[in-house]
Amino acid sequence: MVIQGVLLDLSGVLYIGNQALPGAIAALGRLRRSGLPIRFITNTTRTPQSQILMQLSQMGLAVEPKELFTAPAAVRDVLLAGGLRPWLLVHPNLEVEFQDLDQSDPNAVVIGDAGEGFDYRRMNQAFRLLMEGAEFIAMGNNRYFQEADGLSLDIGPFVTALEYASGRQAQVLGKPAPGFFHQAVASMGLEPEQVMMVGDDVQADVVGAMDAGLRATLVKTGKYRPGDELGLKHTPAWLEDDFVSLVDHLLKEMS
Amino acid sequence: MVIQGVLLDLSGVLYIGNQALPGAIAALGRLRRSGLPIRFITNTTRTPQSQILMQLSQMGLAVEPKELFTAPAAVRDVLLAGGLRPWLLVHPNLEVEFQDLDQSDPNAVVIGDAGEGFDYRRMNQAFRLLMEGAEFIAMGNNRYFQEADGLSLDIGPFVTALEYASGRQAQVLGKPAPGFFHQAVASMGLEPEQVMMVGDDVQADVVGAMDAGLRATLVKTGKYRPGDELGLKHTPAWLEDDFVSLVDHLLKEMS
Repeated sequence: MVIQGVLLDLSGVLYIGNQALPGAIAALGRLRRSGLPIRFITNTTRTPQSQILMQLSQMGLAVEPKELFTAPAAVRDVLLAGGLRPWLLVHPNLEVEFQDLDQSDPNAVVIGDAGEGFDYRRMNQAFRLLMEGAEFIAMGNNRYFQEADGLSLDIGPFVTALEYASGRQAQVLGKPAPGFFHQAVASMGLEPEQVMMVGDDVQADVVGAMDAGLRATLVKTGKYRPGDELGLKHTPAWLEDDFVSLVDHLLKEMS
Repeated sequence: MVIQGVLLDLSGVLYIGNQALPGAIAALGRLRRSGLPIRFITNTTRTPQSQILMQLSQMGLAVEPKELFTAPAAVRDVLLAGGLRPWLLVHPNLEVEFQDLDQSDPNAVVIGDAGEGFDYRRMNQAFRLLMEGAEFIAMGNNRYFQEADGLSLDIGPFVTALEYASGRQAQVLGKPAPGFFHQAVASMGLEPEQVMMVGDDVQADVVGAMDAGLRATLVKTGKYRPGDELGLKHTPAWLEDDFVSLVDHLLKEMS
């Protein structure tokens, strides 16, 4: 099966911090010129969609709005479709994405990567709402991410904490939820098995995509740690040093 | 098998807040006069041992130091036995219990019910130490407890969060760890099956004690919620309205 479309994770694959990875800009250019459709898919929930696009552009990575799929946008769709009134445990930067929704008398706990916002008081508020029967929606279940000074806790541990306390299970709407991958795949007019997902998170990106029927590549950049690929030994994922070598490999397969 | 000793949970069984439950003082007096040995066993990790004894005394519930078994004391024993240097994520009140231990260059993450201390920064510090290979010791895994204004998150959700993030499993040294029950049982010179554990937490107190070979009673006070006993339908636990009716029942069996 020839690859007919590519799904790219953002942070850790194309850039770290506010710096494109070496060769990433040129590699993305070569991939675009190959004619393969590309989509970008991220669980990042500390930044609104408009700002992600601006930051990418400033790093030299131009992305169109219709090419970008974010977990907060997926959550927003579900809230609107269900007429739900969210109680937000999200990063302050992200609150703007939900400001037009009715947040009075909340009936849905919505969790993003709140960072410093994960304090005892707010965790307890979320817990009490869940015990009263509120819906439980999470923008992902990632374990940790790479920061300049080391690994840091992502959203998943806090979702797990609330699941354990309340006995409820969160509806996860970011990666690795299959529906999230399928939304991006469908926007290219393709089937999952025709699309290659590229990420640095062995669980959310690689195992998640393959469980959703896509093909997948683990790159050894970003949060990748030696040995992560052991989680893949029975699956036919590609393993590449970085995004540049993935593009080389893909273009060679197509030629 | 006749009951030959009694293990009592504290908060929610004998008192709530700083007030003995109705009839509890008199019922404890009758139980003591029966001659049955009694031990008190608690996962409370917001208060040092000396202060617990003083508070009990002020409420009219006199307890001897040798009768009281606390999770922090069990953790202290393990740290001393292993020559471990703790990094503490505990309630500020509890730090005094560990002040004589070497806390430089820590090699053991020790978690109590830190309350407001469970903030992102400290959770992240704990996570990074665990990823570097520090031991992982928890003073319990209780889900929540009853406060004046509602249910509040206990230690368990935060332990679970760190387990999920790090892929490590905590050594739990409070209830429901069998060794913790057995320590209190042995101090009475009894075997587990001769001892009745009484608590309001269906998992940590009742299921935990029965899994450790004790008999157990769930009282419908404190954090008990209607339906909690459904978790017991295949086990021969006693179910009592409160500590008073448990004592009535016990003394009737003995007569």
